[in-house]
Amino acid sequence: MDKLDAMFFPKSLAIIGASNVPGKWGFLIINSILGKGYKGKIFPVNPKQEIILGLKAYPRLDAIPEDIDLAILIIPARLIPDALRDCIARDIHAAVIITSGFKEAGEVGAALEEEITEIARQGDLVFIGPNTMGIASEYNNLEAIPAPMGANQGGLGIISQSGNLGLQIMQWFAHKEIGLSFYSGTGNEALLKANDLLAYFGYRDEVTAIAMYIEGIENGREFKEIARQVTKKKPVIALKSGRSQRGSKAAQSHTGSMAGSFAVYSAMFKQTGIIQVRTPSELLNIAGAMAHLPVPRSNRVGIMSLGGGWGIIAADECEDAGLVLPKLPDDIIKDLDTHLPEYWNRSNPIDIVGESDPDMYIYIMEVLARWDEVDSIIALGIVGRSGYLQDFIECQEKIDGKLFSRELKLSLLKDQLKSERRVITEMARLQDQTNKPIIVVSLAEGGLSIEDTEYGRSLSLSTPEEAVNIIAHMVHYRAYLDHP
Amino acid sequence: MDKLDAMFFPKSLAIIGASNVPGKWGFLIINSILGKGYKGKIFPVNPKQEIILGLKAYPRLDAIPEDIDLAILIIPARLIPDALRDCIARDIHAAVIITSGFKEAGEVGAALEEEITEIARQGDLVFIGPNTMGIASEYNNLEAIPAPMGANQGGLGIISQSGNLGLQIMQWFAHKEIGLSFYSGTGNEALLKANDLLAYFGYRDEVTAIAMYIEGIENGREFKEIARQVTKKKPVIALKSGRSQRGSKAAQSHTGSMAGSFAVYSAMFKQTGIIQVRTPSELLNIAGAMAHLPVPRSNRVGIMSLGGGWGIIAADECEDAGLVLPKLPDDIIKDLDTHLPEYWNRSNPIDIVGESDPDMYIYIMEVLARWDEVDSIIALGIVGRSGYLQDFIECQEKIDGKLFSRELKLSLLKDQLKSERRVITEMARLQDQTNKPIIVVSLAEGGLSIEDTEYGRSLSLSTPEEAVNIIAHMVHYRAYLDHP
Repeated sequence: MDKLDAMFFPKSLAIIGASNVPGKWGFLIINSILGKGYKGKIFPVNPKQEIILGLKAYPRLDAIPEDIDLAILIIPARLIPDALRDCIARDIHAAVIITSGFKEAGEVGAALEEEITEIARQGDLVFIGPNTMGIASEYNNLEAIPAPMGANQGGLGIISQSGNLGLQIMQWFAHKEIGLSFYSGTGNEALLKANDLLAYFGYRDEVTAIAMYIEGIENGREFKEIARQVTKKKPVIALKSGRSQRGSKAAQSHTGSMAGSFAVYSAMFKQTGIIQVRTPSELLNIAGAMAHLPVPRSNRVGIMSLGGGWGIIAADECEDAGLVLPKLPDDIIKDLDTHLPEYWNRSNPIDIVGESDPDMYIYIMEVLARWDEVDSIIALGIVGRSGYLQDFIECQEKIDGKLFSRELKLSLLKDQLKSERRVITEMARLQDQTNKPIIVVSLAEGGLSIEDTEYGRSLSLSTPEEAVNIIAHMVHYRAYLDHP
Repeated sequence: MDKLDAMFFPKSLAIIGASNVPGKWGFLIINSILGKGYKGKIFPVNPKQEIILGLKAYPRLDAIPEDIDLAILIIPARLIPDALRDCIARDIHAAVIITSGFKEAGEVGAALEEEITEIARQGDLVFIGPNTMGIASEYNNLEAIPAPMGANQGGLGIISQSGNLGLQIMQWFAHKEIGLSFYSGTGNEALLKANDLLAYFGYRDEVTAIAMYIEGIENGREFKEIARQVTKKKPVIALKSGRSQRGSKAAQSHTGSMAGSFAVYSAMFKQTGIIQVRTPSELLNIAGAMAHLPVPRSNRVGIMSLGGGWGIIAADECEDAGLVLPKLPDDIIKDLDTHLPEYWNRSNPIDIVGESDPDMYIYIMEVLARWDEVDSIIALGIVGRSGYLQDFIECQEKIDGKLFSRELKLSLLKDQLKSERRVITEMARLQDQTNKPIIVVSLAEGGLSIEDTEYGRSLSLSTPEEAVNIIAHMVHYRAYLDHP
């Protein structure tokens, strides 16, 4: 764990193969590190340049006058063995080897990979890679990856056996301003494996949930042991690709490792409490939600909606996913009778038939949240109507005999956003007080989004099926926690 | 059909119950009509106002000095019978009854609904509703709905048995600038049924695909006859809700009609070539795609991707969906050997391993499109990388020793967008020439989007599973067309 701390929390780092040539990896990596605002010391190493991206460059590692915690290597494969020996001579114990052209490139590369692994072992150095797109450690302001993300600090850790896919998922999170703790592309896993990173992310308190993209795990027994320990403390959400024949073949050729039977992986995930998802967008939604929401006690859901159709769709999705919609008891019906229009539907999902008073939403949500028979709540179409209001304002602009002044329109929009913000804050309060997840479905574009409130995070999604899918996965995790 | 032409292509319309009070339905509907820029004559009817939203208002229908094609009624339910009689007296043969408080509100309402239906039948007037959120006819610049959409003109027609859900779907299409032809919320279907609208949308040449949200169809035999005729000419995509017990109960209470067994509907859709989807977002994707893309000949898919992981995910999804990935024949492998790096994977999905030359993408896409053994193509991550470039530019801005001038950065971004545009245009050309759908997966946020090119429309989506789902549904439609 100490060496992995040096990897993810280095106070200084050397970039061997740093470059001033835009587009080269040696440029892209240092560019991201600088852009993210890494606070430690950066020593670019390049025998032909004196300055790289404004920093003093060194011709060789041994020319650097200070201690170095981490080396990032971006030089041709055949130069890596000597470079690793230099690292060891400089008392460096952690490295990230970005360079490709090893096992994935054929026999010669495989031999070279064995050689560098042996050098590292002998020299007490651990490395990630080779053939990785890098690592990120947001609490250390470090993004040693070719694509700068500028991600927020937060609870999610990402481990990916595909660099391209891993960085894409990281970009999704970053663009949605969902906070991240660590990212690691694992590359060829010559020395450090996905297993080691899982153990490390499990051990670090910054991490509240772990998202994994898996093509193949070499040591299944060890993986199970680690996973069992980690899932006790925090949710691990895994996407295992290669479930089809063709996909499995493609995975083998991609990583060079045996992908193994998909069913074996599914069984392993089930036994160890890992939440298995099918697609990268599911990985985004489930991991994003589980890093921020309480886990429900069981599978009973209360739904409120602004219109009948959406409630029906949500009910269908719940039943498909094994979730239960308890019937409203008489005392709740009686209570809501005094708040809702006479013709309300008196069942769960509660259809509030187009009413638009935020106090009423909040009241109903409070009744649902305090109701002992439900464990989580979905609120459909209550928040997210500002899109309609904006369309309305644009429409008014086009009308000769329009009734609204610019000021009035802006104040309408402001009021709407304020009222939505209030509903969201009250939801977060109820979520915090009752420890039941409350998920907003905006029905607007944009997918997963997370808002900070004084009571914690509030989660919203675009569609009921996304919300139901999240709750269903949480319920499976709860079942595992209750009976591992 | 003539009366439905009067409904959707009126030269003049009366709005009975037009209002100057913002938020009232009588205001919202006329606001949308004016904002959309309806070119016909508009006669607001309101006994207490002289001007409504800048238009001269009339105290009664018989005070209007000119011919009226369509009446839109937004007055209390108890006033509707007399208003309909007035319409008939004025020789109006088409009406939309927005007003609620009929069958859905209990026995008294049900009796009133029977009365107005009888009045209409006697007076040779057809109406949509009551209890509908209205209609839109984009080629007539008419949006008689409470929420203004300002939708583009295009091929998609929407029929919805839920106003709330129907308008939300319409908004999704409108915000994505996907062109629409007609929208109809069907309300209580006292006189005109979803069946009649399906027949009308089938008959109008503006409509290239029909999206339906169904809670319950009264006359199944008639529906089947109409559907069989329509699906021969254009795809019909239906979402039937109420497949769960609870959802089915909710649907009954929502529309007041019997929802019937879900399995019966599924069988009916299958027999008539209707494409059944499960969720509103699927309805958006499948209908949006089928309104614009050619239908593939069969289920064989060629995939190209920028990184291994994504290709594997797409292959998994294809196999789950019954799509086949043919093996690359030797002559194609030989051909691509001369264009791709030595270590390319030589199989389908083709992993072009991070190359970024648009000429190469286009070459490979042309090879795939001309290959006899594939019927549709998915291109993953090739287009949509401008997000990374923007992140890169933002990152460079933060660096003291930055290498790029503002001009250079803007020109980089411009070049990237230009090159993506070129790839998209070439895709549309190949799609047009080979009659095979080519679907771009951007891996960026935003979901379905459609771009116009000189060769027709090009479609892109965010994730491989969305692309695969579209092709799978198209393949089922093709199978029906080949053997109805």
